[in-house]
Amino acid sequence: MAAGELRLGLIGLGTVGSSVVQLLTQNADAITRKTGRGLRLTAVASRSLHTKPHPDLGAARIGTDPFAIVRDPDVDVVIELIGGIEPARALVLEALTRGKPVVTANKALLALHGEEIFVAAEKAGVPICFEAAVAGGIPIIRTLREGLAADRNRALFGIVNGTCNYILTKMSDEGQEFETVLHAAQAQGLAEADPSFDIDGIDAAHKLTLLSMLAFGVRVPFTAVYTEGIRHVSQSDILFAREFGYAIKLLAIAKDETDGIDVRVHPTMIPLRSLLAEVSGAYNAIFVQGEALGSSLYFGRGAGGMPTAMSVLADVIELARNLVGAHGVRVPALGLFWKDLRVAPLRPIADLQSEYYLRFMAVDRPGVLAKIAGILGEHDISIAAVIQRDRSDGDVTVPLVMRTHLASERKLKAALTLVDDLPIVQGKSVSIRIEENFG
Amino acid sequence: MAAGELRLGLIGLGTVGSSVVQLLTQNADAITRKTGRGLRLTAVASRSLHTKPHPDLGAARIGTDPFAIVRDPDVDVVIELIGGIEPARALVLEALTRGKPVVTANKALLALHGEEIFVAAEKAGVPICFEAAVAGGIPIIRTLREGLAADRNRALFGIVNGTCNYILTKMSDEGQEFETVLHAAQAQGLAEADPSFDIDGIDAAHKLTLLSMLAFGVRVPFTAVYTEGIRHVSQSDILFAREFGYAIKLLAIAKDETDGIDVRVHPTMIPLRSLLAEVSGAYNAIFVQGEALGSSLYFGRGAGGMPTAMSVLADVIELARNLVGAHGVRVPALGLFWKDLRVAPLRPIADLQSEYYLRFMAVDRPGVLAKIAGILGEHDISIAAVIQRDRSDGDVTVPLVMRTHLASERKLKAALTLVDDLPIVQGKSVSIRIEENFG
Repeated sequence: MAAGELRLGLIGLGTVGSSVVQLLTQNADAITRKTGRGLRLTAVASRSLHTKPHPDLGAARIGTDPFAIVRDPDVDVVIELIGGIEPARALVLEALTRGKPVVTANKALLALHGEEIFVAAEKAGVPICFEAAVAGGIPIIRTLREGLAADRNRALFGIVNGTCNYILTKMSDEGQEFETVLHAAQAQGLAEADPSFDIDGIDAAHKLTLLSMLAFGVRVPFTAVYTEGIRHVSQSDILFAREFGYAIKLLAIAKDETDGIDVRVHPTMIPLRSLLAEVSGAYNAIFVQGEALGSSLYFGRGAGGMPTAMSVLADVIELARNLVGAHGVRVPALGLFWKDLRVAPLRPIADLQSEYYLRFMAVDRPGVLAKIAGILGEHDISIAAVIQRDRSDGDVTVPLVMRTHLASERKLKAALTLVDDLPIVQGKSVSIRIEENFG
Repeated sequence: MAAGELRLGLIGLGTVGSSVVQLLTQNADAITRKTGRGLRLTAVASRSLHTKPHPDLGAARIGTDPFAIVRDPDVDVVIELIGGIEPARALVLEALTRGKPVVTANKALLALHGEEIFVAAEKAGVPICFEAAVAGGIPIIRTLREGLAADRNRALFGIVNGTCNYILTKMSDEGQEFETVLHAAQAQGLAEADPSFDIDGIDAAHKLTLLSMLAFGVRVPFTAVYTEGIRHVSQSDILFAREFGYAIKLLAIAKDETDGIDVRVHPTMIPLRSLLAEVSGAYNAIFVQGEALGSSLYFGRGAGGMPTAMSVLADVIELARNLVGAHGVRVPALGLFWKDLRVAPLRPIADLQSEYYLRFMAVDRPGVLAKIAGILGEHDISIAAVIQRDRSDGDVTVPLVMRTHLASERKLKAALTLVDDLPIVQGKSVSIRIEENFG
């Protein structure tokens, strides 16, 4: 092994595998700074070598035999991204037995063969990491295992299948029936040709098996998870649910109660105004209730090449950090040592470009709007919308409210100083910045 | 040191400190299983020893001198929960110099003296942990440092001050002015007697200093954070904002853009239908945008004794796990070794108690509702609400929709079998479980 370098073997070059290669290349410098060592892809196995070679594969050896990766003396860590049970199971077990840490996104394998694989990892004393196996890019595995480690979790509710959530959201937003939405989703590549794995709740049940073991520290065989999909949810039920104040979501539910553990996946009505009900489209979210913490929620992209690859590489970074361990510090306090933090220009607020809400209290007289708009215009501030209220009896001033397009904070402040000096304007103008870009 | 045991010294026995003691006692067994070693509180320093002794303090030595904790040879890890700059700064620096890991919730100290403290920790090769310093129980520090470590974060938007969010939520929900809500919050102990630290945005700016360094790997001096509080937000602006489709929140914003870094705290208008706008009351949330992951959001209690204590102990658990390190596995895959997972009864779905939505397609004839309600009643299923639609022309059946109170799944299934056999009912009844308990 080159001094300090961590050598990766990748099995599977599909959507997630390709994204891992791309992200590793893009963020190589940042990852080296975070881990204190380089990560290098030394070997890749892919079934379909006839596809166009990946531009970021660099000097990695490429072949079709996944077992060659596991047995390669130049591979320190095995990344398994082929999915399915065999040969994934045999590959993971052999890697662990050979003392090689495994990073996998394979929820089916871990849900169905968790005991065999986790016990093999413990026996070998080798880590197995699977952040990418549940909820794609949301770091819910680490959150349950570390962030909430001091709490006693009582319940967990997850939207963990993006296909189902996309279909239910479309049904709710557009008033179409299940079959119609499913066919449209299949045509757009948002649902599989054989969709039963997703829409019958099996994928969600795989994920719930892992989440419930992590949340409660309890053994949960996949067969104990009650599983009911969304095929029978009809448009009329969505509408009646709304009348009762509910949305319908496919929820993965786990509860740790005094007389036992509930683990179930089924269409569920939840209050329309709850955060989970607001999780729409292909997004995932997990809501956790703990004795000490109370409610918490983790939201993000649950699938897709890049979000999943991000979680795969977070696991690889963790493995690299564990191996460093100099001075007993596994991870620097800010993720990087102080010397490695960038010194970047920090922009003063005057340099901000933003949209603004503006309110003036102005005399209700013709020409006032034109006067104020004129000053704003001279400062390159253009108005997107105006609200002007009728004067109520006895008031001499009325609120004049505006939303601006993108404008310079510096110019806005200059303009407002002039406006505030106008005799037709009373008091100081109010400005509040607007931010639009939220998922 | 007793074999394997980690000995804790606690400085500060206020709300958070007392909760740490309580939680450590409550969850002692679970924590031992998770870390492979016991955690023992050996020494406590508290300014006010005249208060009632804590029932969970056990055999811990108690005194008033915080420096005695740092210098105590029976203390392996120092937990600093007194807040403020001095003597906290001197205590943390001395602990690190003595090679003792520090766990702290002190955002002001780290925001103002971060360089000195983080560099001292690196020089000593000793970890400093501060999950509890930002957003209470939300594990946002680990998320940025580890969960999202492989991504390049582009922007972060946080609701990180519960007092401000509570006041703005109240102003929005109840139509009252800032001063009225503030005084009511002070009377209820939800805002400090001197509230300026919170409502002028200083606390949020402390947290943003830390968050932006973690998110972007960049040095951010506290003085570079533009800070504007919520004193000038008026009821009329909240109403006008709503007309434009916005809510007003105090946001901590950090953006990493090509020409520099923006770090600012100010009242901000955000789309009413965004997840952040739904974060109400004393809750906190952090929204992160990454190149690979896209949008993600982390929501939970941002203050309070127990949520903050939970994060303090998550850090202590991490330190204990780092010290174990047997076989290169820092944390077992499921947080516990397989043998330590509980074997709990997994309840079959028939044992479920739930509220249900029911839909029957029934002949529109007098007595139908009575007949169905009768069968449900015989099975101890009581009806909370009914929707019955008028028959549209040409239909012979109409939907009869009900929401039940809590009922047994087993009894419900038995009742539905009988209902489905009624000649007045067409097709199979639909039942969907209801879950109500979300934050």
